[in-house]
Amino acid sequence: MTPIYDRVALIGLGLIASSMAHAMKAQGLAREIAGHAKSAESRAAALEIGFCDTVHDSAAAAVAGADLVVLAVPVCAMGPIAAEIGPHLAPGATVTDVGSVKQAVIEAVAPHMPPGVAFIPGHPIAGTEHSGPRSGFATLFRNRWWLLTPAAGTDPAAVARFRRLCEAMGAHVDEMDAAHHDLVLAVTSHTPHLIAYTMVGVADDLRRVTDSEVIKYSAAGFRDFTRIAASDPVMWRDVFLTNKEATLEILGRFTEELFALQRAIRLGDGQHLQDYFTRTRAIRRGIVEAGQDTDAPDFGRVKLDAG
Amino acid sequence: MTPIYDRVALIGLGLIASSMAHAMKAQGLAREIAGHAKSAESRAAALEIGFCDTVHDSAAAAVAGADLVVLAVPVCAMGPIAAEIGPHLAPGATVTDVGSVKQAVIEAVAPHMPPGVAFIPGHPIAGTEHSGPRSGFATLFRNRWWLLTPAAGTDPAAVARFRRLCEAMGAHVDEMDAAHHDLVLAVTSHTPHLIAYTMVGVADDLRRVTDSEVIKYSAAGFRDFTRIAASDPVMWRDVFLTNKEATLEILGRFTEELFALQRAIRLGDGQHLQDYFTRTRAIRRGIVEAGQDTDAPDFGRVKLDAG
Repeated sequence: MTPIYDRVALIGLGLIASSMAHAMKAQGLAREIAGHAKSAESRAAALEIGFCDTVHDSAAAAVAGADLVVLAVPVCAMGPIAAEIGPHLAPGATVTDVGSVKQAVIEAVAPHMPPGVAFIPGHPIAGTEHSGPRSGFATLFRNRWWLLTPAAGTDPAAVARFRRLCEAMGAHVDEMDAAHHDLVLAVTSHTPHLIAYTMVGVADDLRRVTDSEVIKYSAAGFRDFTRIAASDPVMWRDVFLTNKEATLEILGRFTEELFALQRAIRLGDGQHLQDYFTRTRAIRRGIVEAGQDTDAPDFGRVKLDAG
Repeated sequence: MTPIYDRVALIGLGLIASSMAHAMKAQGLAREIAGHAKSAESRAAALEIGFCDTVHDSAAAAVAGADLVVLAVPVCAMGPIAAEIGPHLAPGATVTDVGSVKQAVIEAVAPHMPPGVAFIPGHPIAGTEHSGPRSGFATLFRNRWWLLTPAAGTDPAAVARFRRLCEAMGAHVDEMDAAHHDLVLAVTSHTPHLIAYTMVGVADDLRRVTDSEVIKYSAAGFRDFTRIAASDPVMWRDVFLTNKEATLEILGRFTEELFALQRAIRLGDGQHLQDYFTRTRAIRRGIVEAGQDTDAPDFGRVKLDAG
């Protein structure tokens, strides 16, 4: 394929950036990939694995001459990085990010973008419970959504070009308002993660249930939770710090519902429980029908990634 | 393999019973398998698929002459079934169950067991989000735990024989006290299921986030929750009704922890969040090391069952 970008600079070399690099290299979507990570170990890994052509000690050096710059660092690190690279961005460059929160990133990054640079905030809804430069793989984005939240007036040609890149890596692309994005993700991702973290923490605290038992007899429900709760701690800390309002709103609704179910258990109201559980089962069917998961039995059993 | 039992009677023909039948047939562990289900449709399916040699309109008829009887019905149905079959059990027979709660099952079933019959309460920690006679498969129990909670004084030869069956189907077997079982499972399975049901219900209720968006953009966290929340509604209703005390206790601990994290978000206490998330990550590593899951990236991606 003809390269879509000439020089792509990846700032941050974790799971998302390394997966993008593998995907771009697999199909020749970028003529050259430059990288920067704060950690020397990550920079060395990127060169050793070979998903970057060059690595740089500073973000400013990495973005020089790049026509696409990808900010792939935790959300709270986006602002300082944007301030650092702003003066070094090439005229006409596109800057995107991969943060799980969009309003906070826009507030932190947009003021540092010089005129003539297109800032296209983005969020690939893809990941695994692993992190770091050795965790990436080329098919991570295949059949996953990549949400873009560009401000009104962003150069349409720049947006179209970046969409082509996302689609070439296998993703489906949608555009939406940043505030709406943050609410949708609070429901589908941020609050579920917080809940999983909490449940795993509770299990760890219980003295009467020994650690080894929790682990040995980790039934499907708990095992799925531990997978979620194994996600990158710094990334998730920043998500909750920066998508505070929406997360707290959904948590409030969650607690309300949980108390209603808890009351039904206490009162022995079986009909309430059965009705509730029957309703949630239908939502699962919707997700399978929407093609975002398979119908194969998958309850904590050993899997092979067929993606 | 020489059959371990001569005639096995399966009462209830859902996921667990049909998987046991497939596993026993695959290795010749039972000379004959008789089945009973309340629903005529399930009985017909068992014959059509061929995992039962005979099906019976009544549980009493199914257990006649059986040296192993498996009660595989929702927990609240165990008592009435036990009362019905009690007078028809063969001398020397073993009766087991597969309920997710043990104390309530023992209270409901044990009084109906005639002298000379060994009652071995059991719980295979295995399942999928599917249910019914068409959802079973022979490898469901492979590398999974099967917990037994026999009363002191249960015939050791009967327990050893049933253990051999579980192990032949691929399971690891442990024995424990019924009360302890119910607490461990409240932590590792029952409470996580209730939480997943709740979160999926909240997502469904939200008017501002349309159904199609929740489904389209269902990130890993939420997608895993929907899988859990798709489990059999009647089975889970009964679990919460019968393991009430332990579930309410763990829910109380969960709410306490969740409020502490919610407070950290509200106050912007990043260190508290990061420390908590770092601790939970270690538990996941323990589960992987214990061999109860794989380390393969597995966050809502398409899988093949390699079990």
